[in-house]
Amino acid sequence: MTSLYRARIDRVRARMGELGVDAVLLSLGADLPWLTGYEAMPLERLTMLVLGASAEDTPTLVVPRLEEPRVERTGDFEVAAWDETDDPVELVASLVGRLRVNARRLAVSDPTWSRFLLALQRQLPDAEWLAASVVAGPLRAVKDADEIAALRRAGAAADRVAQQLVSGQIPLLGRTEAAVSRDVGARLRAEGHDRVNFAIVGSGPNSASPHHDAGPRVIERGDAVVCDFGGAMNGYCSDITRTVFIGEPPAAFRDLYRVLQDAQAQAVDAAVVGTPCEDVDGVARRIIADAGYGANFIHRTGHGIGREAHEDPYLVGGNCDPLVAGHAFSVEPGIYIRGTFGARIEDIVVASEDGPEALNAVSHDLAIVAG
Amino acid sequence: MTSLYRARIDRVRARMGELGVDAVLLSLGADLPWLTGYEAMPLERLTMLVLGASAEDTPTLVVPRLEEPRVERTGDFEVAAWDETDDPVELVASLVGRLRVNARRLAVSDPTWSRFLLALQRQLPDAEWLAASVVAGPLRAVKDADEIAALRRAGAAADRVAQQLVSGQIPLLGRTEAAVSRDVGARLRAEGHDRVNFAIVGSGPNSASPHHDAGPRVIERGDAVVCDFGGAMNGYCSDITRTVFIGEPPAAFRDLYRVLQDAQAQAVDAAVVGTPCEDVDGVARRIIADAGYGANFIHRTGHGIGREAHEDPYLVGGNCDPLVAGHAFSVEPGIYIRGTFGARIEDIVVASEDGPEALNAVSHDLAIVAG
Repeated sequence: MTSLYRARIDRVRARMGELGVDAVLLSLGADLPWLTGYEAMPLERLTMLVLGASAEDTPTLVVPRLEEPRVERTGDFEVAAWDETDDPVELVASLVGRLRVNARRLAVSDPTWSRFLLALQRQLPDAEWLAASVVAGPLRAVKDADEIAALRRAGAAADRVAQQLVSGQIPLLGRTEAAVSRDVGARLRAEGHDRVNFAIVGSGPNSASPHHDAGPRVIERGDAVVCDFGGAMNGYCSDITRTVFIGEPPAAFRDLYRVLQDAQAQAVDAAVVGTPCEDVDGVARRIIADAGYGANFIHRTGHGIGREAHEDPYLVGGNCDPLVAGHAFSVEPGIYIRGTFGARIEDIVVASEDGPEALNAVSHDLAIVAG
Repeated sequence: MTSLYRARIDRVRARMGELGVDAVLLSLGADLPWLTGYEAMPLERLTMLVLGASAEDTPTLVVPRLEEPRVERTGDFEVAAWDETDDPVELVASLVGRLRVNARRLAVSDPTWSRFLLALQRQLPDAEWLAASVVAGPLRAVKDADEIAALRRAGAAADRVAQQLVSGQIPLLGRTEAAVSRDVGARLRAEGHDRVNFAIVGSGPNSASPHHDAGPRVIERGDAVVCDFGGAMNGYCSDITRTVFIGEPPAAFRDLYRVLQDAQAQAVDAAVVGTPCEDVDGVARRIIADAGYGANFIHRTGHGIGREAHEDPYLVGGNCDPLVAGHAFSVEPGIYIRGTFGARIEDIVVASEDGPEALNAVSHDLAIVAG
């Protein structure tokens, strides 16, 4: 029986053939665990899978000796451990040199440290290099049923925390953003997350900073509070944003929020199979611009999600790729009035032949919490 | 008055002059926050400081528009925000092209994503590239008094958790490694850490896997348990390892531990200013090898620590650089009997003119906890 990993390796090799890529070198990033079950540690010791185009070359995982005991063998790759005084780049280069194909076009996983790429380029001066996302990105972007089930479970867990937020069960008033962020992280773990990727809490004027670092600001009456959090459960990510208001919101905020809620809902409805990614972005952007907030929507509408918090496909102007069944992505427009307040609403959505399926179900209505 | 950041930028420029580096491009990694106070998000949107060799070129921080509100201006750099449909690599390349020096030799921060380096190489085909650690690594490795004070505070916080561990206040018997790991992480946060970098808990046979992922194994009577944990407090890292035994250890473990304790202590004593880094490693390695465990010590003796969990200087064979006052590093030999048990003892040490100062004070004696 062909294993799941073996089947994926075969698909990557087929695509390497189409693209004329002779070898794929995978270090950091999700391509490696997707193909082997093994995740590289994000440190200065090189871990790298050497995957040649020929099915006759067994892929080899180069790992630091002290991490060799962590590797679970799937049977679909060999392991080459290096000692602390060895040069792992030399080892990778020699493995590339021994491939059956004459490896000239090499793809390296996007987040691989530049330091290692530079050293590889010195060892393999005739090679032409490209980013491995070109090879594996479109394959990984299309989730199978098990992957969608995993995303659904992660989304349901994030929903339970978001429900606590909008129903006022997470204390906000009088606490610092940092304290709320830690609390949200702990609740994600309590709901089954293995890892918390981020827990943005932006209050008052900070709610207008989309990637605000939760800090010492104390949450007050009259604050908008943007909470954007997610992590990973069994290797697959969650990501959700809800915005709540402490006390009675001013009319200007209610107006902004109404526009945002409409834009988010219509963008989800537009996310049908066959629609170019940029058109989904365009739907949200047009609604927001028509209401006069065009300059205040300062980011794309969404990003793909899976083993990585952000991955293909991106819902952004310029991405003409059509949505296909199995694509999973965020739909998260935002409107930000610098220095005053902002809001964002985000759900994860899966494109399917039956239409867009939102993996988050917590109400989008403006939640007013204790104030 | 020259700011701290400005003074560091000047020192980096002086070293660029010595090395013939025309521009430094800093994305992920600690060089950027060390010079600007700003840390890049480890995601697919490029953040990059363009720092030219000439003091007349103000450094420019290229950031995604949505992250611009996060940037705190120090006055020593300008900000260039890019929109979602812009090409940030083109922006970086054009900034490099406008530098007063003809920028041919470019240094890029080590953890910068390969995807961005490849795109930069296409935009700047005549450039010669090197890793920025060559420029900033030796500067950052020497900590000033404030940095050592920050490391001391982080070490003291980690010590409080380690003391809870060795005194039996952290329940182990009957719990999974993963549960203990979460508990240790929560305790680090409770003791003031802003971030937990890792909390390795390796029990029984897993104690022989130096970088074991804490997993579902339930800790039993008769287990060695290696706990290696650390995080960051105010930007500076902690890192400590203690090994405890559940119940009465067998003679073979007592023997191994006695050798390890001696090797660790003697390596610390050897970490005096002027000693080559590899000699500190050699001291631990010789003691362990003489006792017959040479093949079981499968990693270097230590790594530098500061803003990054691992940074220069590395205590490893082949590193002939002498220790200088202000170097901060781990001393952490380990002995691992695959399939049976292992142990590691780790403290952070600072080299000073008065001799090595250990930043951790929790006893190294074999701790036997409830069993």
